[in-house]
Amino acid sequence: MARQLYELCGTDPARRFSPYCWRSRMALAHKGLEAEVVPWRFTDTAALAFAHYDKVPVLVDGDRTVTDSWAIAVYLDEAYPEAPKLFQGPPESQRFNPTWCDAVLLPALAKLIVSDIPPLLGAADAAYFIESREKRFGMKLAEVTAGREAKLPEFRALLHPLRMVLRGQAFLGGVAPDYGDFAAFGTLMWPRSVSPLPLLEAGDPVHAWRERMLDLFGGLARSAPSFGA
Amino acid sequence: MARQLYELCGTDPARRFSPYCWRSRMALAHKGLEAEVVPWRFTDTAALAFAHYDKVPVLVDGDRTVTDSWAIAVYLDEAYPEAPKLFQGPPESQRFNPTWCDAVLLPALAKLIVSDIPPLLGAADAAYFIESREKRFGMKLAEVTAGREAKLPEFRALLHPLRMVLRGQAFLGGVAPDYGDFAAFGTLMWPRSVSPLPLLEAGDPVHAWRERMLDLFGGLARSAPSFGA
Repeated sequence: MARQLYELCGTDPARRFSPYCWRSRMALAHKGLEAEVVPWRFTDTAALAFAHYDKVPVLVDGDRTVTDSWAIAVYLDEAYPEAPKLFQGPPESQRFNPTWCDAVLLPALAKLIVSDIPPLLGAADAAYFIESREKRFGMKLAEVTAGREAKLPEFRALLHPLRMVLRGQAFLGGVAPDYGDFAAFGTLMWPRSVSPLPLLEAGDPVHAWRERMLDLFGGLARSAPSFGA
Repeated sequence: MARQLYELCGTDPARRFSPYCWRSRMALAHKGLEAEVVPWRFTDTAALAFAHYDKVPVLVDGDRTVTDSWAIAVYLDEAYPEAPKLFQGPPESQRFNPTWCDAVLLPALAKLIVSDIPPLLGAADAAYFIESREKRFGMKLAEVTAGREAKLPEFRALLHPLRMVLRGQAFLGGVAPDYGDFAAFGTLMWPRSVSPLPLLEAGDPVHAWRERMLDLFGGLARSAPSFGA
């Protein structure tokens, strides 16, 4: 059985925009592993029944099924110990950076770009997305992102811990990327894939680092559909 | 020459309150290394002339002088490779957590506790501290911290990335502490040493983790002078 990664998309199967799926896609590339893309959409719950899970990414690797981007990264280092390591120490000692991405970066991004997503989805997915996110935010999605250009300085200030590290070294992992880079970069592939909002300013060390990440693995992420932002 | 660590204090040499000195003190204990405390005060610039530096911590280890808490931690793992590691991977891959402490946690704490510090200092240090910090904040220190109890929920929300990691494991380092723990804990020893403000709530996983950290090395940090908060 070929290796497969179930990845979130909308009507265009090439525009894969999940921050978690991007973490796994970059992790696979770092390990030098191919994996067929299986496009998955929000309402395709039946397609994941085999995994007893309701979210992506889901990795199918031979007879192993692994759900959750963190578990996939841990699995890849265990299953392929000879390939470049994703974790430069025990995985549990590397949780803070991905957790900061989940706890701080993702919610801040959602407030800036959530309204860009429904137009990219089919009717059933759009209905699901709008209803669930409006419930979460307690308002219309257009209201969430209203006046978003004015909120960009606050968003860029949130990136300051990343910026401080990247002023002194090429990657969060040091001279080469590691899973910390893929977690943060994967998170930023979400807005890049769905929104024209220019989040990062040229001259920002975070912008320069994102450029380096876009170039990795033959431009894997740079060649993905984006709004160029 | 005995090993010495220059550590910030005020009139009471036992009340050492620098977040950076606490990082180094805990790091030394993790390595199983003794180091004489050399009390240092803000205006003792002459005492550090030998190190060509104007801040603490400064570590003197035989004929080596190491300035800056990060450099001290890197030095300790290099100089004492047989002792327990501070970094479970290359140090540069572990910069995000300490940097987050510097960029996010410390400024947030300063706004809550900066006015508690001058009463602990001698006259010359207090004058220096008040002038430099009032200049930084652009207001009187009492104005900075006015109404601080009302700002505690916002501060506790900032700790969420720590909290999410510590819900699932005993230490940021995993089953045992590493430098990430000492960076975050050392930062929290600053308010504990100078302020009665109750920053952490019982029941918060961050509180439970701080209790574990206070117990390490025979209660090294717990036995330090504090306001019990």
